[in-house]
Amino acid sequence: MELKTPKGTRDFPPEEKILRDQLTNTLKKVFELYGFSPFETPIMEHFEVLSSKYTGGAEILKETFKLQDQGQRDLGLRYDLTVPLARFVAMNPRMKMPFKRYHIGEVFRDGPVTLGRYRQFTQCDVDVIGAPSLKADAEILALAGRVFKELKLDATLKLNNRKLLSEMMKAAGIIENADTAVLIVDKLDKVGKNGVQKELKEKGFSETPIKKALDLISIGGTNSEKLEKLQSELNESEGIKEIREVLGYADAMGVEVVFDPSLARGLTYYTGTIMEAVLNEGKIKSSVMGGGRYDRMIGSLMGKADIAAVGISFGLDRLFDAMAEKKEKQKTVTQLLLIPIGTFNDVSKMAEQLRGAGINAEIDLMDRGPSKNLAYADSLQIPFVAFIGEEETKQDKMKLKNMKTGKESLCTIEEALAEIKHS
Amino acid sequence: MELKTPKGTRDFPPEEKILRDQLTNTLKKVFELYGFSPFETPIMEHFEVLSSKYTGGAEILKETFKLQDQGQRDLGLRYDLTVPLARFVAMNPRMKMPFKRYHIGEVFRDGPVTLGRYRQFTQCDVDVIGAPSLKADAEILALAGRVFKELKLDATLKLNNRKLLSEMMKAAGIIENADTAVLIVDKLDKVGKNGVQKELKEKGFSETPIKKALDLISIGGTNSEKLEKLQSELNESEGIKEIREVLGYADAMGVEVVFDPSLARGLTYYTGTIMEAVLNEGKIKSSVMGGGRYDRMIGSLMGKADIAAVGISFGLDRLFDAMAEKKEKQKTVTQLLLIPIGTFNDVSKMAEQLRGAGINAEIDLMDRGPSKNLAYADSLQIPFVAFIGEEETKQDKMKLKNMKTGKESLCTIEEALAEIKHS
Repeated sequence: MELKTPKGTRDFPPEEKILRDQLTNTLKKVFELYGFSPFETPIMEHFEVLSSKYTGGAEILKETFKLQDQGQRDLGLRYDLTVPLARFVAMNPRMKMPFKRYHIGEVFRDGPVTLGRYRQFTQCDVDVIGAPSLKADAEILALAGRVFKELKLDATLKLNNRKLLSEMMKAAGIIENADTAVLIVDKLDKVGKNGVQKELKEKGFSETPIKKALDLISIGGTNSEKLEKLQSELNESEGIKEIREVLGYADAMGVEVVFDPSLARGLTYYTGTIMEAVLNEGKIKSSVMGGGRYDRMIGSLMGKADIAAVGISFGLDRLFDAMAEKKEKQKTVTQLLLIPIGTFNDVSKMAEQLRGAGINAEIDLMDRGPSKNLAYADSLQIPFVAFIGEEETKQDKMKLKNMKTGKESLCTIEEALAEIKHS
Repeated sequence: MELKTPKGTRDFPPEEKILRDQLTNTLKKVFELYGFSPFETPIMEHFEVLSSKYTGGAEILKETFKLQDQGQRDLGLRYDLTVPLARFVAMNPRMKMPFKRYHIGEVFRDGPVTLGRYRQFTQCDVDVIGAPSLKADAEILALAGRVFKELKLDATLKLNNRKLLSEMMKAAGIIENADTAVLIVDKLDKVGKNGVQKELKEKGFSETPIKKALDLISIGGTNSEKLEKLQSELNESEGIKEIREVLGYADAMGVEVVFDPSLARGLTYYTGTIMEAVLNEGKIKSSVMGGGRYDRMIGSLMGKADIAAVGISFGLDRLFDAMAEKKEKQKTVTQLLLIPIGTFNDVSKMAEQLRGAGINAEIDLMDRGPSKNLAYADSLQIPFVAFIGEEETKQDKMKLKNMKTGKESLCTIEEALAEIKHS
């Protein structure tokens, strides 16, 4: 039998999981500062829910893992955290609005495995349900700005609007299949202007409208300059009005946002605001956060009127890669390795005392001598070790060694506590 | 379309997820105090790994969710966190020992859904790999004792040993199929002495050995009394020797453990120590923690010699049910709802300042009046609200209301911070 993880999935040993946990803890802290509460849904959903025409669309459905339970019910592994949220809200029509929740969880896509693309990955989502006001969109941008500040990552927050994209297509003369054109335009960053032009042609769009559309989405300048130029090209524009409103609130909240008329985001369910974050440092060039407003999905699932919804998703794996480039990986949570020399029971008592005072303390469980224990501590980069022989136990003391400085001292438990806590 | 979660799975709205997170945070903290580091494996495994004869056994395999990826690879959803750990260790033969890891994750069993039995549930596992010494077994009991102390749950830790169970069966005259007999004995708590007797008979065991075996496992008294009585019935007993050793270390560590000769634990892979915890309060009568030593599984997966392993698993769902009986559920993480009265942009700035100081602050996103906002705060039990009209923004102040006491005061941001933090 060949032992390995399924294709596109990974193990996270402590040296990776410790950093991943630090990351999710920071995300949680920021999400809660904005009044988002934790929330969880099952890994599996009824396939009917995942495949509803109001949810992810055909592209994503092709990559959905399918399974059946013993009752022959058709199930699937969730491909995002948005559809399960929509299902939950639709099932609970009397809930208090706005419903502000965050969800950090695994999602699954049975697609091609390439560098940085996995079949199981972790999304970190925040959504506001039930608030039609664009204040919610702006607040989410402020939250994203704080996330990157806390993580000390240099990122640019980008804003656009689906209504504006449609309006630009219309102004360019693309009226039929405008949504298809928008999804092709979304690839601008990846395939460049020529690539987009080529694909649009292949899909049957004619040359003049394509040129005009690409000119419009490539308009340059500051936020105000871009808005003014587009305003002069379009007549009444709901998209521009919404972007101005979001930028106004974001300004009051102190978060810097770049209006990017070429930003499209792949998913079909967005109805207004779309948002994205890209890093300005390190090797990760693709987006580390994305989302937008999707006012129609939940109501459609319920067969009812629109229910306002806006949210974003942070990609934990890409954030992790970016953090890992900058930070040395910690191999263990252990702060102190206690090494008894024929004194296991006495040292056990000490260990319990140290743990009671909040120190992550390991005790030698291998009955190894000092040098092998030192090698073990060294390989895991445990910051402190302590030797305790009979002489030490009589005095209720330990020989503490700081593994970084090499400094050794005979000290009481209280002294050891103080030294470890202040190191 | 009927909207619901798959059978045997549940959504966790904030009022449940907040408490679940508090629980897992406590578990993580205690696990780390004992030098266990976080770790994660994929939700899916190759079916071949899950179905290896050295892992879960036939019973559990019947309940394994199966699926295929696009490359027609046979996969399954993990049914526990132990088999994936064994697979990881087998794949990494050169890792430093002992390997001490914890893993909190979802597991899946496609079995009958009854009260308290789900198809997706959460296990919280700690395991020590590579340490043959029973010091590791005792340390895990100490860890469990601290978990229940921190959670303020009154629990009894029970200890037995698979070697002793075999020895008792042998002494009773059950030599062939002794393992089958042990698995039936495991049901003593559920079906009673008569039920066990009946099933043993049905499986072809004869009357006299059954009676003798049941007498042995039902021996009463203190730990020492039980050990002495059994010692006199058995000749050389490896099981008793091991139990004495574990109890000795546990005593030094200050954790109380009850030796229960009837404890068997269902899984077949245990080789020595078995452990369990039951609550002495509330409605949860079944075990909330279980585990033991499984020295053969990992080596067998590798086709090599034994690799020592011992670990336990806490059932998050049962711990949650026990905690939920005692604690009022919190509905939101929000500490303060800011209610602007025509002053959204100014209040946005205040909100950002409060968040910077660590307050979970929500701002009205619905453009609602004071009374509707109060009703919203009330329904979510948000502890503080603040009204900010133009008059207040001019003075850089807010009208803060403590929702519990009803007390209102006009105060600065700093004063509000102090009041909220000290409430």
